Amino acid sequence: MAEHDIDGLLLTTHPDIYYFTGFLTRFWESPTRPWYLILPQSGQPVAVIPSIGAHLMDQTWLEDIRTWASPDLQDDGVSLLASVLSEIAPHGRIAIPSAHESQIRMPLNDFDKLKNIYNSGHIVEDEGIVRSLRLIKSDAEVEKISHACSIASSAFDRVPTIVRADQNLGEVFRHFQMLCLDAGADWVPYLAGGSGPFGQFDVISPAADQTISQGDILMLDTGLVWDGYFCDFDRNFAMGTPDPICVDAYCRLIDATSAGFDAARPGAVAADVFRAMDQILTGGNATDRNGRMGHGLGIQLTEWPSLMPTDRTVLEPGMILSLEPGIETRDGYMMVHEENIVVTQTGARYLSNPTNRDLPRIGV
Amino acid sequence: MAEHDIDGLLLTTHPDIYYFTGFLTRFWESPTRPWYLILPQSGQPVAVIPSIGAHLMDQTWLEDIRTWASPDLQDDGVSLLASVLSEIAPHGRIAIPSAHESQIRMPLNDFDKLKNIYNSGHIVEDEGIVRSLRLIKSDAEVEKISHACSIASSAFDRVPTIVRADQNLGEVFRHFQMLCLDAGADWVPYLAGGSGPFGQFDVISPAADQTISQGDILMLDTGLVWDGYFCDFDRNFAMGTPDPICVDAYCRLIDATSAGFDAARPGAVAADVFRAMDQILTGGNATDRNGRMGHGLGIQLTEWPSLMPTDRTVLEPGMILSLEPGIETRDGYMMVHEENIVVTQTGARYLSNPTNRDLPRIGV
Repeated sequence: MAEHDIDGLLLTTHPDIYYFTGFLTRFWESPTRPWYLILPQSGQPVAVIPSIGAHLMDQTWLEDIRTWASPDLQDDGVSLLASVLSEIAPHGRIAIPSAHESQIRMPLNDFDKLKNIYNSGHIVEDEGIVRSLRLIKSDAEVEKISHACSIASSAFDRVPTIVRADQNLGEVFRHFQMLCLDAGADWVPYLAGGSGPFGQFDVISPAADQTISQGDILMLDTGLVWDGYFCDFDRNFAMGTPDPICVDAYCRLIDATSAGFDAARPGAVAADVFRAMDQILTGGNATDRNGRMGHGLGIQLTEWPSLMPTDRTVLEPGMILSLEPGIETRDGYMMVHEENIVVTQTGARYLSNPTNRDLPRIGV
Repeated sequence: MAEHDIDGLLLTTHPDIYYFTGFLTRFWESPTRPWYLILPQSGQPVAVIPSIGAHLMDQTWLEDIRTWASPDLQDDGVSLLASVLSEIAPHGRIAIPSAHESQIRMPLNDFDKLKNIYNSGHIVEDEGIVRSLRLIKSDAEVEKISHACSIASSAFDRVPTIVRADQNLGEVFRHFQMLCLDAGADWVPYLAGGSGPFGQFDVISPAADQTISQGDILMLDTGLVWDGYFCDFDRNFAMGTPDPICVDAYCRLIDATSAGFDAARPGAVAADVFRAMDQILTGGNATDRNGRMGHGLGIQLTEWPSLMPTDRTVLEPGMILSLEPGIETRDGYMMVHEENIVVTQTGARYLSNPTNRDLPRIGV
């Protein structure tokens, strides 16, 4: 902050506030109340939060907690927040994350009101400070993500016990989430996937209203949470005997993942990992238009960086990445494989339990 | 829009985009990519979205879908969005929801960039248009929320089969989510609760690292989703024989809920429902500082209005409300009861399966 002449950070979102305080609740699902955390350049952080969260925030390491009775239709914490900012930096520069992947979680009207009340100071962008901190995971964070990955690996191992041809895809999605919970997930915020003869049409769909057919490729991609940290990887399963085109595509996906794994070393850039995977998939001809082939993760399902040609983020120990190569098979279908890794001093280490080139088969 | 001289709405969040298009995905968990929907005052809506979502958006009723390869580190859809706005309303007023409970889901830098590029037009607030539409549920929406409620009611009925004293609370939370999925939930975005001799210290906590004790009051409050719509209600259970103070508090909570139910008629205001419940709880002495006692719900866990003294929203048929009275028992503990209702022409109707004054007991 001193380098950038910033007097304090103003944070408004679950991931940023959890990162700095340990304040963990699923109550962020409710859009009604705004929550604020101010991290001054020096001195103690200040939480400016609805009184409904005071007890839970009091369980964290924070000592300075100011509350108001929210929702307040006239002044939903804005003047309280402005007074804290004025106290910390009466003529200062308060920074908020405002670049890619950031959002400000407060009504725009309130943000304008805040700027009007706190008009002795300036609200500026945070110059990537929060991103750069969250990008490198501590050992404790790696441990949490690793545990989330091991839970998902166990759940995926049991998929053959809950799936059969002719089953409704919605039922499979529900049962798979039950497996994740049974294996120890705190909750399952993300699940996407599909089932089709040559893979799926996209990788973000919820369960379509369809039944699984013999010969389909079933893909499940989950982001489950343990102690506030995500894993994010998928598994493919063949329902009986898959089309040879899928067997071949799967082998190439596994080979591409291995190549990405080998390339994910300290000093390499995100684009290098993309290039290593793409060398296997297209001989090195993909562009950003083909989409990225992985990303960071942690408190969020996806975080900085992106594995794509234009991302020059230098890899460092403590970065967690998903490797997520995809192939178009035919007729608009695609197959995607995904693993999670951590970058260490000596290279990458798998956090998910990596699969081999044998596409798992169900019901044979 | 015509009344307010607005040429189009610009929407950026899951609930608003799902409401108007039916585009349903859990991919909103990923903060990486922005998504835009433009609803012109007349003419067809335009989706301006990352290409990764094109196939899924193509399954909706929308015909005009423009995509870009996101993430794009230089221009993540902003110039495409600006060109669409210029096409629809070159010198117009484009409105975004910006009051209470709203957020803009795009980086602030991009929002500033958008205003700079689309400088022939103005971005203004939506004057509550989106809120007023979402506030009144159609029959189809009521049906979806009703179904979500019936799933949660079934899951709550089975709680005695998964809970015992000396059990870890985290295990109860995991098993309860499995019950919700088994009963038909698509996913379980929200679960809070706790267990203590006189209730809980707050209503927003995830599972604390504790075991349930004989004599505790266990509370579970869930927001599960079916076809994109939430329920939101809780249930209390006594582990064995509860303290008389809890038995008494529970009776008053049930009586307050009934009073709120009776007051929730077309023409009443949100504050009237609060007052009816508070009459039972404090003899009518509560203020906004005591917190609201319920709220709307639908595509989100909590929606407009708030049941509190200052909310003068007039109730109309099709509004869905949670009734959520709370009582402080002793030593900082509280108990909360919650039901979900729909306002109809002739009064309220329960969507959750309402409980009676007998506090359910487990293990007796």
